[in-house]
Amino acid sequence: MIRLSPPGHQRIEFAPYLEVWCGGGEYNVAYALARLGLRTGWVGGLNDSPMGAIVRNHARAVGVNVDFAITRKYDGMGRKDRIGLNFTEVGFGPRASVTLYDRAYSATAGIQPGEVDWKKLFQEKGVRWFHTGGIFSALSESTRLVVAEAIKAAHEAGTIVSYDLNFRSKLWSSKEAIETTRPLVPYIDCLIGNEEDFQKVLGYEVEGVDVEKGELDTTAFKTMVEKVVKDFPNVKVVGTTLRGVKSAGINDWSAIMWAEGAFYDGPQMSGLEIEDRVGGGDGFASGFIYGFLTGKSPQECVNLGVAHGALLMTTRGDTSMITLDELLHVAKGGSARIKR
Amino acid sequence: MIRLSPPGHQRIEFAPYLEVWCGGGEYNVAYALARLGLRTGWVGGLNDSPMGAIVRNHARAVGVNVDFAITRKYDGMGRKDRIGLNFTEVGFGPRASVTLYDRAYSATAGIQPGEVDWKKLFQEKGVRWFHTGGIFSALSESTRLVVAEAIKAAHEAGTIVSYDLNFRSKLWSSKEAIETTRPLVPYIDCLIGNEEDFQKVLGYEVEGVDVEKGELDTTAFKTMVEKVVKDFPNVKVVGTTLRGVKSAGINDWSAIMWAEGAFYDGPQMSGLEIEDRVGGGDGFASGFIYGFLTGKSPQECVNLGVAHGALLMTTRGDTSMITLDELLHVAKGGSARIKR
Amino acid sequence: MIRLSPPGHQRIEFAPYLEVWCGGGEYNVAYALARLGLRTGWVGGLNDSPMGAIVRNHARAVGVNVDFAITRKYDGMGRKDRIGLNFTEVGFGPRASVTLYDRAYSATAGIQPGEVDWKKLFQEKGVRWFHTGGIFSALSESTRLVVAEAIKAAHEAGTIVSYDLNFRSKLWSSKEAIETTRPLVPYIDCLIGNEEDFQKVLGYEVEGVDVEKGELDTTAFKTMVEKVVKDFPNVKVVGTTLRGVKSAGINDWSAIMWAEGAFYDGPQMSGLEIEDRVGGGDGFASGFIYGFLTGKSPQECVNLGVAHGALLMTTRGDTSMITLDELLHVAKGGSARIKR
Amino acid sequence: MIRLSPPGHQRIEFAPYLEVWCGGGEYNVAYALARLGLRTGWVGGLNDSPMGAIVRNHARAVGVNVDFAITRKYDGMGRKDRIGLNFTEVGFGPRASVTLYDRAYSATAGIQPGEVDWKKLFQEKGVRWFHTGGIFSALSESTRLVVAEAIKAAHEAGTIVSYDLNFRSKLWSSKEAIETTRPLVPYIDCLIGNEEDFQKVLGYEVEGVDVEKGELDTTAFKTMVEKVVKDFPNVKVVGTTLRGVKSAGINDWSAIMWAEGAFYDGPQMSGLEIEDRVGGGDGFASGFIYGFLTGKSPQECVNLGVAHGALLMTTRGDTSMITLDELLHVAKGGSARIKR
Amino acid sequence: MIRLSPPGHQRIEFAPYLEVWCGGGEYNVAYALARLGLRTGWVGGLNDSPMGAIVRNHARAVGVNVDFAITRKYDGMGRKDRIGLNFTEVGFGPRASVTLYDRAYSATAGIQPGEVDWKKLFQEKGVRWFHTGGIFSALSESTRLVVAEAIKAAHEAGTIVSYDLNFRSKLWSSKEAIETTRPLVPYIDCLIGNEEDFQKVLGYEVEGVDVEKGELDTTAFKTMVEKVVKDFPNVKVVGTTLRGVKSAGINDWSAIMWAEGAFYDGPQMSGLEIEDRVGGGDGFASGFIYGFLTGKSPQECVNLGVAHGALLMTTRGDTSMITLDELLHVAKGGSARIKR
Amino acid sequence: MIRLSPPGHQRIEFAPYLEVWCGGGEYNVAYALARLGLRTGWVGGLNDSPMGAIVRNHARAVGVNVDFAITRKYDGMGRKDRIGLNFTEVGFGPRASVTLYDRAYSATAGIQPGEVDWKKLFQEKGVRWFHTGGIFSALSESTRLVVAEAIKAAHEAGTIVSYDLNFRSKLWSSKEAIETTRPLVPYIDCLIGNEEDFQKVLGYEVEGVDVEKGELDTTAFKTMVEKVVKDFPNVKVVGTTLRGVKSAGINDWSAIMWAEGAFYDGPQMSGLEIEDRVGGGDGFASGFIYGFLTGKSPQECVNLGVAHGALLMTTRGDTSMITLDELLHVAKGGSARIKR
Repeated sequence: MIRLSPPGHQRIEFAPYLEVWCGGGEYNVAYALARLGLRTGWVGGLNDSPMGAIVRNHARAVGVNVDFAITRKYDGMGRKDRIGLNFTEVGFGPRASVTLYDRAYSATAGIQPGEVDWKKLFQEKGVRWFHTGGIFSALSESTRLVVAEAIKAAHEAGTIVSYDLNFRSKLWSSKEAIETTRPLVPYIDCLIGNEEDFQKVLGYEVEGVDVEKGELDTTAFKTMVEKVVKDFPNVKVVGTTLRGVKSAGINDWSAIMWAEGAFYDGPQMSGLEIEDRVGGGDGFASGFIYGFLTGKSPQECVNLGVAHGALLMTTRGDTSMITLDELLHVAKGGSARIKR
Repeated sequence: MIRLSPPGHQRIEFAPYLEVWCGGGEYNVAYALARLGLRTGWVGGLNDSPMGAIVRNHARAVGVNVDFAITRKYDGMGRKDRIGLNFTEVGFGPRASVTLYDRAYSATAGIQPGEVDWKKLFQEKGVRWFHTGGIFSALSESTRLVVAEAIKAAHEAGTIVSYDLNFRSKLWSSKEAIETTRPLVPYIDCLIGNEEDFQKVLGYEVEGVDVEKGELDTTAFKTMVEKVVKDFPNVKVVGTTLRGVKSAGINDWSAIMWAEGAFYDGPQMSGLEIEDRVGGGDGFASGFIYGFLTGKSPQECVNLGVAHGALLMTTRGDTSMITLDELLHVAKGGSARIKR
Repeated sequence: MIRLSPPGHQRIEFAPYLEVWCGGGEYNVAYALARLGLRTGWVGGLNDSPMGAIVRNHARAVGVNVDFAITRKYDGMGRKDRIGLNFTEVGFGPRASVTLYDRAYSATAGIQPGEVDWKKLFQEKGVRWFHTGGIFSALSESTRLVVAEAIKAAHEAGTIVSYDLNFRSKLWSSKEAIETTRPLVPYIDCLIGNEEDFQKVLGYEVEGVDVEKGELDTTAFKTMVEKVVKDFPNVKVVGTTLRGVKSAGINDWSAIMWAEGAFYDGPQMSGLEIEDRVGGGDGFASGFIYGFLTGKSPQECVNLGVAHGALLMTTRGDTSMITLDELLHVAKGGSARIKR
Repeated sequence: MIRLSPPGHQRIEFAPYLEVWCGGGEYNVAYALARLGLRTGWVGGLNDSPMGAIVRNHARAVGVNVDFAITRKYDGMGRKDRIGLNFTEVGFGPRASVTLYDRAYSATAGIQPGEVDWKKLFQEKGVRWFHTGGIFSALSESTRLVVAEAIKAAHEAGTIVSYDLNFRSKLWSSKEAIETTRPLVPYIDCLIGNEEDFQKVLGYEVEGVDVEKGELDTTAFKTMVEKVVKDFPNVKVVGTTLRGVKSAGINDWSAIMWAEGAFYDGPQMSGLEIEDRVGGGDGFASGFIYGFLTGKSPQECVNLGVAHGALLMTTRGDTSMITLDELLHVAKGGSARIKR
Repeated sequence: MIRLSPPGHQRIEFAPYLEVWCGGGEYNVAYALARLGLRTGWVGGLNDSPMGAIVRNHARAVGVNVDFAITRKYDGMGRKDRIGLNFTEVGFGPRASVTLYDRAYSATAGIQPGEVDWKKLFQEKGVRWFHTGGIFSALSESTRLVVAEAIKAAHEAGTIVSYDLNFRSKLWSSKEAIETTRPLVPYIDCLIGNEEDFQKVLGYEVEGVDVEKGELDTTAFKTMVEKVVKDFPNVKVVGTTLRGVKSAGINDWSAIMWAEGAFYDGPQMSGLEIEDRVGGGDGFASGFIYGFLTGKSPQECVNLGVAHGALLMTTRGDTSMITLDELLHVAKGGSARIKR
Repeated sequence: MIRLSPPGHQRIEFAPYLEVWCGGGEYNVAYALARLGLRTGWVGGLNDSPMGAIVRNHARAVGVNVDFAITRKYDGMGRKDRIGLNFTEVGFGPRASVTLYDRAYSATAGIQPGEVDWKKLFQEKGVRWFHTGGIFSALSESTRLVVAEAIKAAHEAGTIVSYDLNFRSKLWSSKEAIETTRPLVPYIDCLIGNEEDFQKVLGYEVEGVDVEKGELDTTAFKTMVEKVVKDFPNVKVVGTTLRGVKSAGINDWSAIMWAEGAFYDGPQMSGLEIEDRVGGGDGFASGFIYGFLTGKSPQECVNLGVAHGALLMTTRGDTSMITLDELLHVAKGGSARIKR
């Protein structure tokens, strides 16, 4: 997706110009891991217009491989194969950030089963980790099939599969989400999501969930995770971020992770200043995936996830502008003293 | 439509931000005439998102009435009732300007017959002139019907009807255009279009038309106009602009008009410098409509059209930033000496 | 007034460019109420220069009617009928915001008694609420007369009159203010002002007032209000904002209101982040006027005022960029969690 | 004066921000000569607000001495001692540049006779050249007296006096101008002005003057100059620029100069591209003053004037951004080939 | 190199900010060819600072491979391994563009013989074309050796070698250039350079060369080429651009090429408008290399070179923003009519 | 030095443009004191390129005298006499600010002993205070000698000497620093530095110093100062700032000063908001130097230092944008309530 955003704390309605950014769930994770030094690629839909080129250039700039993305000829009108758009403004104080999607009929939503050669990717190319999630699944009838085919191909090839549940009520109903997603879980190694996601996407009822309050009840979360991993013993890791929204620019930020039998609490970053909250969750995901792929302990992984999410939210745009040195410094509790 | 444009001579693919402008065929004409001091309104589709507000605010700022526009609830996703977009870059030298449409499924394309109370507009409100054209007609199945209903209602009420033929091959075929448009001509008083438009939209074959060459053969044009007005004696005025594209920023610019039996050549503006060529044609249309509505002679009207189109192209954006004083000064051949 | 402001936290002295905003006491209230869906108009002075057009376009964009504003021909030099200017910079941390007025000889200051047809407005057009205040009164000898004539005409027509006392020592002395203002109070329904205002503009001595400290003594305020409404039993509502300036960007923010015999405390917004504090008071006024005009209870009205003032200060510029949905969300205590 | 200008070719009415520039007749000349390596100073009115600081900093940055400028306390309101403003937009093609003055009641207009110690400047400090003109004279009753006192003091000290006639109909009538200016000419060494200026400011009737046409009749100019120098034999140099306005951005540019008995034509710069035409005349004046002060021949002086005016118009803003090397290169006919 | 440039036509001395661009002789050619669809790579020096990342990201964004670039640890001080800088402003009218180098001690200048595995590149990777030139040779003692080793390795592997002579008097003397370059010519297939380059870098005396005049004498050029190819019969192609500098923004533009016995004149683009002339020569080189690598005739190759150089100069920055479709359109003489 | 900085909270690696600022230790102090109304000058190296002009103009704009700076001819390449650069980004939240130096081979580093006529400055011109420090000393072999010669000349002339120890490990080793600096202390009146500086630059071992922690142990500092002033009884004042880095944008800020036998604690500014922390230390130095030079008490001096440092950090750039009124207001504990 291309994201168009007013500068500073301006509003979409009144901005004389909009900044151009790129982002998307899987995309943000591939992008961040490339910056941290891993080889990554992104699979999705592009087109041959300048809008498609914006996304392609943006990905390649940091070394994300887009050779397996599907590129179609744009019709010059927008009937299909669009580059999905969102109009996102950064909130301020009591005024929340706003994202306005304009992403129907996108090239990504139009990907068909069979179009991507997953076998080549997972078996010949030897991809070690595959990350996807609920937004891509919800985009269209065909993407649901594509996700299923990809997850199974990855599983078969021994590629680790992570899945961010990410419920979006504008995209589908809870019923559709559950029907689509539960059959996929047996092929998933790592689940990411908050209590609401587990309820709406997997059907686990939890008492007293109110994500609006900005404080997740970690006890309820833990109880629920234990149910999930009992039902799906193939799941090895479950993670979620914890975000307390003091104001648009000040959040309490942490995460909790279950990994093969134990819970690990991430560092509590209270009163964290937020430049742009979009992409924070993907920052957590890419941080802890980085940890697992480089052989860190579960505690180090959740620390990396929290630190990476926090750092990602210090810059505008959905995608990481963080370096490995910076991540390691903050994950170890390093201060914000000037580097010179 | 909202138009998103790179600043200066930058390209869509590489611009860090995009300027926000508004425009559209009928919209540009209503907007320009409001600036010249006439009471005008615009009818089309809007939505209740900030994108809809951008267009609504932009129109109202100069006094264009939007009370008759249809406003729908946006679905937050873009499946329908979108605000149409275009990504437009201003060319330079040998590099042409580019417009990339992303306007399918817009609120305007979704207007249905019966939604607008044309009778109230033309009869009760006493609108004197109604302007529309081929792009709106081509947007969707329903807009074709809406155009027909509007033109007939205007005609019945004694409102003058002008129609800009504007063929766009990406929107429909010549066959569809002809089938849709010819039945409307008996209700039209003023036709605007170049030879290609008359051929593709009304079916008048002309020899040797090559709009790419940048020089319209005024003889062929005149021959063709004579055929048209013989077939449709209700047509009282036919006009077209003449544009010779020396480079993206330097055009030869003029216009020719037939009015009730005679041809009138507009002033020749050779080597005209162009800041942004989009909207030049609508600038011509609004200039000469201004002339007719204020009782000017046909020669004055074509002069006003040429001058207004030229001035409109001295600013970025599709819509006029010109005042009546400036229009009258240039239409009389006034120089560009500093005003202070 | 046109406000020229350095971007971000830059200073007037060093800024390479200045942002263009519009504002003014009555103007801000009319503008905000139009955004909330009410029909409003603004009466003041404009001129026929591009500077006048900036204000006119800005008002009309959100639907504020300016048909009753007085527009004069600008002399091209600035001897009179200027558009008032202010140069305003947003402070940061311990550095205060600064407003530098350059508004003498403005078109608004030049309005003469008899120029505006108040009777038509209040009686024929049926305006329900008239809002003005001490800054407009103080601008010139003639505006004092205009305010008096307007308030009396409104009162006579049964239009509710609200008046923001707003003492400005640069504009006039306390003595002049008292002599001008006290005779108006019998025609006023709703008074807005802090303790200092009541002292300097109406002559009510209060002990221990120090607005610099950033904490109004609500006890003293309440005592004083009781004196005022005893003297002027026609006054039905008295309101004031409470602002504790922790730093230029962090304020404690609330309000207190007396309405027909009882006091109502607004919500305490401690440590409120401020993007631009100018217009916060007008935001309060427009919020509670909205409440009264839509039939809310006094407590709801003060809540709306506090929330609206807080939201208005989340954006640059004096005027509201807030929607009704956003106002209602925050007035009910809603969080700043992202909307998407 | 501070000049506020929309960026690029935007218009005052629609610009979201305005660039901040400084300028003024005498100011521009002092500024340019400082850049060319001469010691210069500027005398005028400033105030102690940030607006005054903008001008002071701007002058000092290139080494212009402002120790003799009069600085007053600003009243925070604009009743007097303002920093004069102008809103200037750069035209494009057939659309002329526009300057909108807002300079009444400025600190410069308020300078009183006796406030500046001219004797100290011209006699003790040994200033070699004093430049002023008709705009400063026309600002107010008091500036007329100040100009007279300064010119006489300069003359008495043996300082060369140059005077740019510069008629502005918005500031005063031709009658006032003539009554004020003719008595000064006996103290002036160098007159600058076009035929219209000589007619309106000194009363020399010339046949067929039409500055609008953009081509001065050099024969008429020469005839007129001969009359002037016969009447005022003390005048040693008379110069004028010749500007043919093809469009706002393309001018024919040259100058003609009479010096002690002979006429010298400057180089013809046909089709000169103009970034910003404001300050071109002052660029001419400073170029030829530089020539005279560094001992160049009259022909070299007019060449320097034409080249310097042309170069000055290649940048935005009224004041020079040109270096001595660049001036000498172009004055010798050097090309615009890249320097690297 | 990173290029820092004032926006628009501003000057380095006065710009409040500078745009960030990337460029360099070989770099520009590799970048442009990647945009045209060929697989390319760039070899040079980078460092591990954010400055190095800017260049690396910029190259990768369009698909230029940088795996063979040498990346060193930056010392945080600039004693060595800097990223070379240039401060470049775009001229206007009679004011020339200016480039100010700050590129000593760069990582590229520090490349040592033996550091790059040319054999792997040319033999194992099968690179078909190697392009370098006189600027890289002149950077330091070590780069001269690196160029020699690279050219010989390419020649040995059958890779085509092109060399842009590009004399720069600030980098070395003609004597050094000749001593360094002549021994390389037997390994070069394609020479690019103007008459001055052939004289200063290869020692061919030509009568009447004056590149300042902006018009190369093609007869002298042809005579000289015939001498060169007689002395070095291995040379198969010799090309040069022809640039007549009417003003900084208007150039006459063409090229001439000798290929295996015959001369081919490129199209004459008179009065070409120039947005930014830097990179025009590299645009020519990449255009004709594209032609040769895709099997075009010599005449088509020179046409592609001229069109590509012209198009490259329609955008800011040294590197191409042009697509293959646009190149082919203009190379065939296509007009600048809007694409929509 | 010229500082190039991304706008807002952007990063060097991803910024499309960089803001241009000027700064440097001694430079910042001279600049700030000039703004406070004192006559100051700066001595260092400049060149004749536009880069040199940027620094010269910036200094002169606020009245800093640069007549004693050494200006050299730039070689157009950067081998020597460069203008030192730094690329500085402002951090956000947990992400620290970053400064990347590129300042080797600068004109300042190249100053040679004997080039500056210190005697003229300190004896004839009567300079009252001379400020320099460890960064300038560390730049090159020659600057060490220049600092020694300057300090001794100042001492001999009775000019007060202040020296900011400022250890930078990238510039030299502690051993070099100690060998260079200790011999200078007998000529220094006022030392500025934290515990680490005293250890690394003067060799005073202190227990438990960890500047990373963001809280200086004032007890250890006091013990150490007592040792220093016992060894060097000529030292009359020792000062240091105390900075607790809560986040990049929130610091605890204070200072402590020893003056002729007693310690003075500055005001505690807890949770101070920081726009740009660079230059804060120089802001402290210039604040307390202002105090001493205008006869304030030691307690007032440290208050001025803390307030001035805090205010300086409310604006972007290394140099002060603060006025004397603002400094005095905050030094007295004044609030950030809007000024209007």
